Amino acid sequence: MKYTIFGESHGPAIGVVLEGVPAGLELNAEEIQRQLDRRAPGKSELSTARKESDLVHIISGFFEGKTTGAPLTMVIQNSDQHSGDYESIRYTPRPGHADYAGFMASKGALDYRGGGHFSGRLTAPLVAAGAVARQVLAQQGVWVGAHISAIYGILDRTMETPEELRPLVDKPFPVLDEGKGEEMRQAILEAKENGDSVGGSIECVVAGLPAGFGAPDFGRNVEGIFSQYLFAVPAVKSVSFGAGVGFAYMLGTEANDPFVVEGGKVVTKTNNAGGVNGGITNGMPVVFEVTLRPTPSIALPQESVDLRTGEELEIEIKGRHDPCIVPRAVPVIEAAAALAACEVLGI
Amino acid sequence: MKYTIFGESHGPAIGVVLEGVPAGLELNAEEIQRQLDRRAPGKSELSTARKESDLVHIISGFFEGKTTGAPLTMVIQNSDQHSGDYESIRYTPRPGHADYAGFMASKGALDYRGGGHFSGRLTAPLVAAGAVARQVLAQQGVWVGAHISAIYGILDRTMETPEELRPLVDKPFPVLDEGKGEEMRQAILEAKENGDSVGGSIECVVAGLPAGFGAPDFGRNVEGIFSQYLFAVPAVKSVSFGAGVGFAYMLGTEANDPFVVEGGKVVTKTNNAGGVNGGITNGMPVVFEVTLRPTPSIALPQESVDLRTGEELEIEIKGRHDPCIVPRAVPVIEAAAALAACEVLGI
Amino acid sequence: MKYTIFGESHGPAIGVVLEGVPAGLELNAEEIQRQLDRRAPGKSELSTARKESDLVHIISGFFEGKTTGAPLTMVIQNSDQHSGDYESIRYTPRPGHADYAGFMASKGALDYRGGGHFSGRLTAPLVAAGAVARQVLAQQGVWVGAHISAIYGILDRTMETPEELRPLVDKPFPVLDEGKGEEMRQAILEAKENGDSVGGSIECVVAGLPAGFGAPDFGRNVEGIFSQYLFAVPAVKSVSFGAGVGFAYMLGTEANDPFVVEGGKVVTKTNNAGGVNGGITNGMPVVFEVTLRPTPSIALPQESVDLRTGEELEIEIKGRHDPCIVPRAVPVIEAAAALAACEVLGI
Amino acid sequence: MKYTIFGESHGPAIGVVLEGVPAGLELNAEEIQRQLDRRAPGKSELSTARKESDLVHIISGFFEGKTTGAPLTMVIQNSDQHSGDYESIRYTPRPGHADYAGFMASKGALDYRGGGHFSGRLTAPLVAAGAVARQVLAQQGVWVGAHISAIYGILDRTMETPEELRPLVDKPFPVLDEGKGEEMRQAILEAKENGDSVGGSIECVVAGLPAGFGAPDFGRNVEGIFSQYLFAVPAVKSVSFGAGVGFAYMLGTEANDPFVVEGGKVVTKTNNAGGVNGGITNGMPVVFEVTLRPTPSIALPQESVDLRTGEELEIEIKGRHDPCIVPRAVPVIEAAAALAACEVLGI
Repeated sequence: MKYTIFGESHGPAIGVVLEGVPAGLELNAEEIQRQLDRRAPGKSELSTARKESDLVHIISGFFEGKTTGAPLTMVIQNSDQHSGDYESIRYTPRPGHADYAGFMASKGALDYRGGGHFSGRLTAPLVAAGAVARQVLAQQGVWVGAHISAIYGILDRTMETPEELRPLVDKPFPVLDEGKGEEMRQAILEAKENGDSVGGSIECVVAGLPAGFGAPDFGRNVEGIFSQYLFAVPAVKSVSFGAGVGFAYMLGTEANDPFVVEGGKVVTKTNNAGGVNGGITNGMPVVFEVTLRPTPSIALPQESVDLRTGEELEIEIKGRHDPCIVPRAVPVIEAAAALAACEVLGI
Repeated sequence: MKYTIFGESHGPAIGVVLEGVPAGLELNAEEIQRQLDRRAPGKSELSTARKESDLVHIISGFFEGKTTGAPLTMVIQNSDQHSGDYESIRYTPRPGHADYAGFMASKGALDYRGGGHFSGRLTAPLVAAGAVARQVLAQQGVWVGAHISAIYGILDRTMETPEELRPLVDKPFPVLDEGKGEEMRQAILEAKENGDSVGGSIECVVAGLPAGFGAPDFGRNVEGIFSQYLFAVPAVKSVSFGAGVGFAYMLGTEANDPFVVEGGKVVTKTNNAGGVNGGITNGMPVVFEVTLRPTPSIALPQESVDLRTGEELEIEIKGRHDPCIVPRAVPVIEAAAALAACEVLGI
Repeated sequence: MKYTIFGESHGPAIGVVLEGVPAGLELNAEEIQRQLDRRAPGKSELSTARKESDLVHIISGFFEGKTTGAPLTMVIQNSDQHSGDYESIRYTPRPGHADYAGFMASKGALDYRGGGHFSGRLTAPLVAAGAVARQVLAQQGVWVGAHISAIYGILDRTMETPEELRPLVDKPFPVLDEGKGEEMRQAILEAKENGDSVGGSIECVVAGLPAGFGAPDFGRNVEGIFSQYLFAVPAVKSVSFGAGVGFAYMLGTEANDPFVVEGGKVVTKTNNAGGVNGGITNGMPVVFEVTLRPTPSIALPQESVDLRTGEELEIEIKGRHDPCIVPRAVPVIEAAAALAACEVLGI
Repeated sequence: MKYTIFGESHGPAIGVVLEGVPAGLELNAEEIQRQLDRRAPGKSELSTARKESDLVHIISGFFEGKTTGAPLTMVIQNSDQHSGDYESIRYTPRPGHADYAGFMASKGALDYRGGGHFSGRLTAPLVAAGAVARQVLAQQGVWVGAHISAIYGILDRTMETPEELRPLVDKPFPVLDEGKGEEMRQAILEAKENGDSVGGSIECVVAGLPAGFGAPDFGRNVEGIFSQYLFAVPAVKSVSFGAGVGFAYMLGTEANDPFVVEGGKVVTKTNNAGGVNGGITNGMPVVFEVTLRPTPSIALPQESVDLRTGEELEIEIKGRHDPCIVPRAVPVIEAAAALAACEVLGI
């Protein structure tokens, strides 16, 4: 299964083509829409006031309720665009955004309106693709869950077992410790009031993957596969498996996961490895954490350069933006993880 | 340029095939050997006492001092193997190692001697491949450097500018702050005495990449490309770009890199983005940090399971092992980064 | 540049996503439409009476007249569908068609209406993608031309030089010898009257490719690259380069192309190699011939099997079909060749 | 399963790395050597007098008689090289050879000795890789066979059923009609006496592939996959499936394969499609024919150009060469077909 996302924030439509979908799958289209609704903005004061109805249309590869195995295409029409907001920043790249890098890559032929193809809006088709992947995985007993693990330095409590994530699936702000969640929300609202934004982290679990998938080699190792999907999500700047960066503070005796037998099955007592050894699944849940940078769009004035004249100047970003992208990114990270898990399983 | 590493720790030889090497490159074979020597063990009490002479032979794709464009193959003969050391652990997987995952992936047909294809020894051909990549990059003004940024919680000082890494290139234990380096070495020796091991981190820079390479899309974004190469290095469990996990503690105003003009060129004042925005190089040095787990091979007894009988038991790992893999991993991470940089540049 | 075609004959739309299009190309959208019009049916009694307006809409990757480098998506709405025509053949596969193979591949979940994703109609987005490739190639002095080289055993005269194909580009029935062309048309009309169909061949030239592109290796050799694009065109069953199958009748002295100098440039006197030696372009025009099977849809009764009951029975195919697909396939083969040439050039 | 061939004719060794080999396969190493022996020269007056012992050594991915799933590397040491023979042609490319194209691709840094990486000798590792593929396929009931279908215009009789190829597997000159075979041998010897060479064709069958594998789409269609492997064999200039170029002489009523039931299974009465419809296997044997050009190395004088001075001159090729490559190419084509069949089956 391979996905290709197309479209721009202010173009007529955005969408995704999924190649290699297994044929004959009874695809639940409502469930795809439900995943998209989890990502949609405008649902609380924590997110942008922009309305994105994000109605998904399946236009190929789907017939009489089943996948046909032909490329499956899903399209979302664009609307509620304020293209005028962006004219002023056309040649003055916004700090933290892809404007300058994109300008250079496109030799100046960038669709600069609303971030164009770089827009966070392009995560909507990713969620749609991931929703298909999740239905494929469900048939094999694999599920994906996640929680917000940190926002502006406020950490959710440590996850004891992946099962704890199951009840969080329908929450708009999924955390294990509701008190910490409240602190996080306050930090977001404070940043919003200040015309600023905050970053954070998401911990994600893929449970049910059998042992023995992957390889140590380039292009086939599980961590490499997952990271490629995860770094394709805008704003993700760090991917860590299991104990992750914590390994730099550990002894081998602390880090090694002892093998024991549980219910006739070989398992590890701890899961510091995050379900992967030598690039291969070991039968434990695959656990990883991603860090997302603060939303680069902030209301405060920032330093930039006019790319035509080379003149240094100050810019102010207009428009409606998320003070923190993390809550809405939860279903996106889950979607990327589901697509990665399909590749690991050779689907 | 695509690399394929082959071989097992106790087989006749290990090696690598590099496809897509630009033709006509005057390849310095001594420099390849020199990179391998940086990785070789047995040079100090900090590393394993195993001797690995690691003499590299170029057996194809190289003629009269130049690359021909045909697949370039480098082979290293194996020697100094104590295969008997491993018989006892054949069916009792070592915690933290790939033994169990590899056993499942190979349906029991694993070459278990010395880690087989999972052995850290397989990073030698990776360093050789990276040495070729570095010579290709040098022609385009791109260089790669690194330092040990952390060992067992002892942090090197913050890098102010990539140029600081240049003088470290020939040091066996490259750190910016020698005092911190001494503390790190003590931590490693202490772990060694205790029959234990420690983990750590490496910060790496790829300098000289022009702006505009990469794309936001899956399979083409710079962070995704780098991470795939980096996670293919055994023991790497985390990859972070720029401010990395620190973004979870930051405001947008702190995180955004302001644009200014320097010497007629658009640059950013800070480099929190690590040289990448929207999956595209922005002209600043690409900076990332990887975390490596503590060497799983420790002398202390550990819990395991006999895979034939399902019986829980205690194992002790014999043989000579690195108490900390981080120092020897520096040229390996640099090699992986060089290969990734070639892919980013379309070489 | 990589293309992904999606859609079904009787779905809402068909289209193509082109990844890796060079940014900043001034794309002539009218020229894309003109190529599609060359392929469109209903223009003469030689082709199906179906009307396919095939208006192409660029919905991403294109901004202010230029390509942006982001995935370029082109969509064609479907219309004039007679889905009812196909109900009767749902479980009785048409001989020569993909119905049975597709039924097995999709585990019965096939969109059987009008050939679904297997329909010749899906060559419309291929022509659109090829039209973009042609504009990219034109900037490098590369052009593509073709003529009908055979229909039902009637052979066009031998092409002396690729330049002869230039004046044929706007002809609906491009042949070098108009007399032979008239014979071919008669053969097609005769087949049509008999409720039958005929096969034929197309010879195609890609001129202007410099020497030195490609490699002998799997995945990189020029003939392998071209053939992969050409066999992805429905009905193509044979691909031959240069003297092609004629080599089986030749001596080495006849087959070898002597080297001479012409205008200060090394060229070959003959071009039996079809512009490729050892999988690499030699600077001569790349010349190849493809054979296309007769349209499998014929009006005469044919033997089939009911896939539900295993009962053998006779079927009659309704609907409007081309008695010979070759004339309309000319721009399709050119499009496939243009896309292949881009891959050869590393675009 | 992906293969990478490395080495040059006059380098120290040639070989192949096979990635993605299924683990746990009991690999018969003698059978690999036996396939190589079929390809070896020096066995009759029909082939070159060069001796190539071609002893294959498996140096990775194989342990205690089984594949481990790690990259499987096979190496053949070179010997019996007369490098001096080639000095004279270094800058005067041989007509029909890859010398000139290779010179341009390598920017002059070509290993010109004995054809270097372009040498027909590089088909030895391909045969070794194919021998592994054949053992993988055998477990799934798939087998590959072939016969010489034409040499210098002398055609073997038409194959009635794939089963006819089974008894030919150990013959050095496999034909269905021994009388025609004798004529072919005479044509080869006559060419040899004249210092010339002849071309020919091979028809190959892959039997036992189940229906439903492949797709119509680029990169996944069966004919495209096979052709990519086949054109990677030096000297192959044409690939045709089923009736192949004959379709250009046929009516739809002749070309379409009627469906019938045989032994409770849906089959086709004829197999003009060569086992593939719409890019998908239909359960019938995959049948294709390749055409190989006459050996470009001939003893007669030929026209060339000195690449340093641009001077036109006459060259004579020394050394020992096959007057016809077709007989020795039979196991090579079978090997390529076996590797292609593995890809089709997703192995």
